[in-house]
Amino acid sequence: MRKGVRLCITGSEVMNGFVLDRNTQFFASELYARGLELIESRIMPDDPEQIVKTWKEFSASGDLIVNSGGLGPTSDDLTVDLLCEWLGDTAVYEPHAEKRTRYFFEKRAKDKTRVMSIDVALRQARIPSKATAIKNTVGLAPGIFIPEVPFIALPGFPDEIRGMWPEVLSIIERLDFSRSAMRIIPLWGVGESQLFSVLEKSDGVLVGVHALPWGCRLFLRSDPKHEPALDEMVATLHSRYPGQIVENPLLNIIESLKSQNLKLAVAESCTGGLAAKQITDLAGVSSVFQGGAVSYANSAKTALAGVSPEIVEAHGAVSAECAAAMCRGIADNLQADLSLSFTGIAGPDGGSAAKPVGTVFIGLFDRRTGETRVGKFFFPFGRERFRNASVATGFLALWQHLERAQARPFPLSELN
Amino acid sequence: MRKGVRLCITGSEVMNGFVLDRNTQFFASELYARGLELIESRIMPDDPEQIVKTWKEFSASGDLIVNSGGLGPTSDDLTVDLLCEWLGDTAVYEPHAEKRTRYFFEKRAKDKTRVMSIDVALRQARIPSKATAIKNTVGLAPGIFIPEVPFIALPGFPDEIRGMWPEVLSIIERLDFSRSAMRIIPLWGVGESQLFSVLEKSDGVLVGVHALPWGCRLFLRSDPKHEPALDEMVATLHSRYPGQIVENPLLNIIESLKSQNLKLAVAESCTGGLAAKQITDLAGVSSVFQGGAVSYANSAKTALAGVSPEIVEAHGAVSAECAAAMCRGIADNLQADLSLSFTGIAGPDGGSAAKPVGTVFIGLFDRRTGETRVGKFFFPFGRERFRNASVATGFLALWQHLERAQARPFPLSELN
Repeated sequence: MRKGVRLCITGSEVMNGFVLDRNTQFFASELYARGLELIESRIMPDDPEQIVKTWKEFSASGDLIVNSGGLGPTSDDLTVDLLCEWLGDTAVYEPHAEKRTRYFFEKRAKDKTRVMSIDVALRQARIPSKATAIKNTVGLAPGIFIPEVPFIALPGFPDEIRGMWPEVLSIIERLDFSRSAMRIIPLWGVGESQLFSVLEKSDGVLVGVHALPWGCRLFLRSDPKHEPALDEMVATLHSRYPGQIVENPLLNIIESLKSQNLKLAVAESCTGGLAAKQITDLAGVSSVFQGGAVSYANSAKTALAGVSPEIVEAHGAVSAECAAAMCRGIADNLQADLSLSFTGIAGPDGGSAAKPVGTVFIGLFDRRTGETRVGKFFFPFGRERFRNASVATGFLALWQHLERAQARPFPLSELN
Repeated sequence: MRKGVRLCITGSEVMNGFVLDRNTQFFASELYARGLELIESRIMPDDPEQIVKTWKEFSASGDLIVNSGGLGPTSDDLTVDLLCEWLGDTAVYEPHAEKRTRYFFEKRAKDKTRVMSIDVALRQARIPSKATAIKNTVGLAPGIFIPEVPFIALPGFPDEIRGMWPEVLSIIERLDFSRSAMRIIPLWGVGESQLFSVLEKSDGVLVGVHALPWGCRLFLRSDPKHEPALDEMVATLHSRYPGQIVENPLLNIIESLKSQNLKLAVAESCTGGLAAKQITDLAGVSSVFQGGAVSYANSAKTALAGVSPEIVEAHGAVSAECAAAMCRGIADNLQADLSLSFTGIAGPDGGSAAKPVGTVFIGLFDRRTGETRVGKFFFPFGRERFRNASVATGFLALWQHLERAQARPFPLSELN
């Protein structure tokens, strides 16, 4: 049985720092989630000698080799030629890729944006004759699978790899790998330190805890014969943390708002636009997202979110009362049904003994019931993580509110 | 002469996908910027056999080995023990690190947050006896330099590596590397295709173009003996693109606003809070940043940025008139001296023949002169890059406005 997978990431643009290699992490997490082992990832320039030397060394182990990069049409795209040289094979046009390449070539000729000859363009439609093609739905160059090594060649572009990934997985499924049983549980609002009592009962189960701004993701791993123990642990987690096991609260929120035809608004002080930015990262939210106020200055809290200066004077800008006024005010201003507000101290300066750096008040308003809830949280993890944790907590609270989940891990207390 | 640097990145948390390796890119760009070559980066788990095998293979080349990870106190932190085993050396306490470790250990004992014994904690204060310590100002474990290999061991945490980097560079300077002469030019608002006429005159100069959302960064590289040709090319670029060669306009803007005691506000439609988010990513901006409106819905443009519904009705929400009204309105609402506004079509839907996806209007208002300027731009690169390019362009325009640069690559035309 094969032990695992070895990656070869090629591309001079990675070696001079222009491009951050995200493929290693993509492959690593995809393989880990399926109980497969990633043994090594080697990143190197488009250097023929270095690449073939690496392939040869990797192939001696019997592990699956996955190569990314080098499948385009230009002269530094070497993968197909090097594979043919190494395996004593010849390159042939893959019919589907050839057809698509010719089609786009003609189209570009019409647009007068053609920059290369058809012969050069067709280089990316080639695969070794012994290979099976993996269809590329995003770009033009097909992926390559050579069972005898075994070897999979993919393009370097993350979006093309993602497009091919289902087919790659089906190839991996057919190879004979030693693998573990695995369960993955996203757990919002729960840190590693709170999990000791659950994790200690883990006979035969290896627990990996991936800390994230919004909580953690648990990876429960076991020998296949201990799979029932995995499922038991999952059931325990579900009963202990109802409403907190959810993949992405924001996506759920948007779907829920759309189906109920409800409008959302946000008022942000310490998070400075991050919540609005994350919402509008998603396409198609304009039917449910009205907008928001980034009320950094106190006068902006009044001008944009209708917070009366008396509230700020009496309780401070970082207070439950101000958070409540902010979410009610922005909902009124933007005629929203639901709203979130954030006011806190991101740091590094501005803290006090009563309200240290890391303190944040999150408000939630629901026009349908007139309810305003505010929670106080403490995320003393530095500016960036403070802001990420604050926004994530707000989205989780809103999702739980929309779901009317019984258990609320962040009980935003009712404020009148 | 040594050819370059080989990296060994160790850490099981990278191999299961929990952590994205950013160290390879950091080392790659830092070395490339100094004309040094990164030959390979190998990422592997905390596996003693695999790590030592890699070091041995690397050391045969005579290149500098840089290892990151494995310097902490826990049992999977193997670097020091493996180095001693490999080099026939013994570990000793490094006095400075020992003192710091004991200090923090006592402090934690008082806080009752001590989780390990002093012996375990002191593991991270050890270095091989032959080694020179590299001071860690962020964490506790010192870095390690072993001249005879040569070998540098650094922690895995990016912030600790950054803290040690000046000392690492001074070590690298003293090693005998073959290196190129290098000049790096950040060029705002200029794409690769516009650079042909400059780049073709590059006798003896290798030009690397790193495309970025806001333009590109040019890397001009030559043999040391061609260094004058590099400087000539840099002079040409400065005279051709005045006001566009700037490292980070946003940082310059904040400094300029602070020194002049001016207040900034933003009104964002298509960018959805991204500009405000980028401004508030920076600590200490509250003295110059009032806040902003995320006016996604048309009604929000009216409620937050005072845009009259007639303007939207007559010209559309994506128009020069609306952009002008947005920046004037938000400046009035928030009593700002300067403001930026963004309204456009991020896509994928919502485009038309007259205003296709990728169209954006950027407005700039200056209360001191009453001047309102608006520019129309086209960034048809997908939602994320569209938003990044829009915000970057706005910041560049504002910086050039504050500098009163004569040449304005994005001439925001005056609108009354």
